Amino acid sequence: MNAISPLESGSDAARHGRPSIEARLLRRLLAAIGNPAIEFVLWNGERIAASGVTPVSRVRITDRATLLGIVGDPQIRFGDAYSAGRIEIEGDLIEFLCMMYRAAQRADAAGSVARKAAGWLHRPRRNSLEGSRDNIHHHYDIGNDFYALWLGETMAYTCAYYPTADATLDQAQIAKMDHVCRKMRLRPGDSVVEAGCGWGSLALHMASRFGARVRAFNISKEQLAFARERARQLGLQGQVEFVEDDYRNISGHYDAFVSVGMLEHVGRDHYVELGRVVRRSLGANGRGLIHSIGRNRPALLHPWIERRIFPGAYAPSLGEMMEIFEPSRLSVLDVENIRLHYALTLRHWLQRFEERLAEVRGRFDETFARMWRLYLAGSIAGFETGTLQLFQVSFAAAENNDIPLTRAHLYRH
Amino acid sequence: MNAISPLESGSDAARHGRPSIEARLLRRLLAAIGNPAIEFVLWNGERIAASGVTPVSRVRITDRATLLGIVGDPQIRFGDAYSAGRIEIEGDLIEFLCMMYRAAQRADAAGSVARKAAGWLHRPRRNSLEGSRDNIHHHYDIGNDFYALWLGETMAYTCAYYPTADATLDQAQIAKMDHVCRKMRLRPGDSVVEAGCGWGSLALHMASRFGARVRAFNISKEQLAFARERARQLGLQGQVEFVEDDYRNISGHYDAFVSVGMLEHVGRDHYVELGRVVRRSLGANGRGLIHSIGRNRPALLHPWIERRIFPGAYAPSLGEMMEIFEPSRLSVLDVENIRLHYALTLRHWLQRFEERLAEVRGRFDETFARMWRLYLAGSIAGFETGTLQLFQVSFAAAENNDIPLTRAHLYRH
Repeated sequence: MNAISPLESGSDAARHGRPSIEARLLRRLLAAIGNPAIEFVLWNGERIAASGVTPVSRVRITDRATLLGIVGDPQIRFGDAYSAGRIEIEGDLIEFLCMMYRAAQRADAAGSVARKAAGWLHRPRRNSLEGSRDNIHHHYDIGNDFYALWLGETMAYTCAYYPTADATLDQAQIAKMDHVCRKMRLRPGDSVVEAGCGWGSLALHMASRFGARVRAFNISKEQLAFARERARQLGLQGQVEFVEDDYRNISGHYDAFVSVGMLEHVGRDHYVELGRVVRRSLGANGRGLIHSIGRNRPALLHPWIERRIFPGAYAPSLGEMMEIFEPSRLSVLDVENIRLHYALTLRHWLQRFEERLAEVRGRFDETFARMWRLYLAGSIAGFETGTLQLFQVSFAAAENNDIPLTRAHLYRH
Repeated sequence: MNAISPLESGSDAARHGRPSIEARLLRRLLAAIGNPAIEFVLWNGERIAASGVTPVSRVRITDRATLLGIVGDPQIRFGDAYSAGRIEIEGDLIEFLCMMYRAAQRADAAGSVARKAAGWLHRPRRNSLEGSRDNIHHHYDIGNDFYALWLGETMAYTCAYYPTADATLDQAQIAKMDHVCRKMRLRPGDSVVEAGCGWGSLALHMASRFGARVRAFNISKEQLAFARERARQLGLQGQVEFVEDDYRNISGHYDAFVSVGMLEHVGRDHYVELGRVVRRSLGANGRGLIHSIGRNRPALLHPWIERRIFPGAYAPSLGEMMEIFEPSRLSVLDVENIRLHYALTLRHWLQRFEERLAEVRGRFDETFARMWRLYLAGSIAGFETGTLQLFQVSFAAAENNDIPLTRAHLYRH
């Protein structure tokens, strides 16, 4: 990253020894967020950066109300102002966001009080049975056609697995499903319960490629309608049952339990309960896998993401995930952190999203398109800077000794 | 397992409707430990089992004082009485211990108050700098020649890694060292710090096979003397430095941090401190591995093991291990639970131990030999019943993006 080119014009009051009120406010903000190498450019051409920092990104702010908003509540108002077109980032958006995340990590390591206070101000929404339905509806029921624009053939809306970095999105999504099934050592005739099945790609894959009988739970009506139609088209209705219900209402006994990308919506207050559901679903030879966005240490999601994109969402640390397994006689056999795979997945999604931008704008509006771009780019930055992790946790019933001696079977293909 | 053969003789007071005081005490004990399918046979021939249970193992008790001892404090006195020859187990000792562990797990799942109370009665010894020295001296400084009788060529006293179940002990120990080095992606010229190096086998392996420069810490004088002599014989003194000091006093910067089988002696009060030592030893591209006995959920070690074999020892749950990593800007990349490998390793050790029993008795005495047999057999039972786990946790500095996309490189050989 090089320093940005100099501005062609601009009246910088601070250069003349008279720091404006805007300059003082923004310098205080910059200090609170770890002094990233950015320069603000205001509506009047005034330029503001942290002292002693050579800016590598430029943030244009269109009006005073926007500035006061982001100074008052940067965590929420920055994203809102970007969505509304009241903030523009010059240069690469992902690089800008990576720099912001790295600065925040430095501030966090230094124990910034401002960041901690911001975290406490923004608690995630609750995930009661009713609350979960509202939260899931908010994100997943905005139109299957919208997601079909950029998710690829599989319609898998979770981290893919790239055997090599040059795999295509669809190849990597199929490789992810194979990887998950191999980790569970699925065999023909096995019964599997899936908690949070999205548009059904993994459930159908387990049935068609591994011969499993699957019951897949979801509370998103639109996703379920899509998944059932796919099952019909593939002639898999007899092997895969899609159930419109909450994971807490899973009943029956199964050989395996799998959940890919649902835990983020469970909420940390419900991990022990989830563990009880897992355990009561499995017999003594039971096994399973939970795949989730995670954290290196306990931390709330970025408040703007939790508020605007994923209400009620929370990404646990590995220690917090253990609250699922430890109280419920489950044994963790394998954990794989594939965070860089999510950065690759998201880059593929963002590229497709930008290619279909006209359709997105037509279906929604410019604000929605910008909000969604910021969410995808911010997620890339999160995984690339190590702010976010992706954990695949394989487990078995504590008394299950039918476990492979090594993991070599995952890599023999 | 079949029911044991009937006794040829014996006066069972209970059969005649007069349950003896001994019978009542032992039945209460059996209930508290989950009613395992065992039968006690007393000095007078009286036989006692839980009602409705068909015994598959028989425990002979030689005198009333021993009986009162194990009834009063079964967790400590059973092992002591076995060591002293006042208790004999008929049939396979490992099978007997597996059955005891499984019964205890059932009692534990049912929330037995007796077991919980027993846990609180037996707190592990402290691991201050001074306490650790005493604790380590107790176990590791009883004579290198003794360990050489049964540990095999490598003198590695930690869980081996069996690429296939028929590998020999020495092959599996070398495979473990390779596996650990590959997980850390050691390269020639890398600097490594090792916390708790035992008799030096891994330090010397990292130097001779992977070209690393190693500083290896240990507080056991006898182990260090042995390790230094090995380094001299191999001409590796210039590449491997063995340091007599506590892990808390590690200084300097390294490419990698490794600790195999030391965490059990660190004590859960010191995990955050250990994490700080790890983090300050590593730069932004740092990585490492911690290998430790663990648990599916927080629990003290068996009190007899903690008292007689490993003073101060504690095997953490994976959630507890996260106290090392989460506060210290470390990112967990990979966790592998290889508990069945430790059962295999211990079976090899026990077999060699029994083959050299005459020498053990000659060097120590019969009580020591029986104590050691019970410890090894009990550990096999612990790992085979899932009471104990073995976690290898690979990690990197949170900001390190030089991490492999997949784990396939571990399995290409």
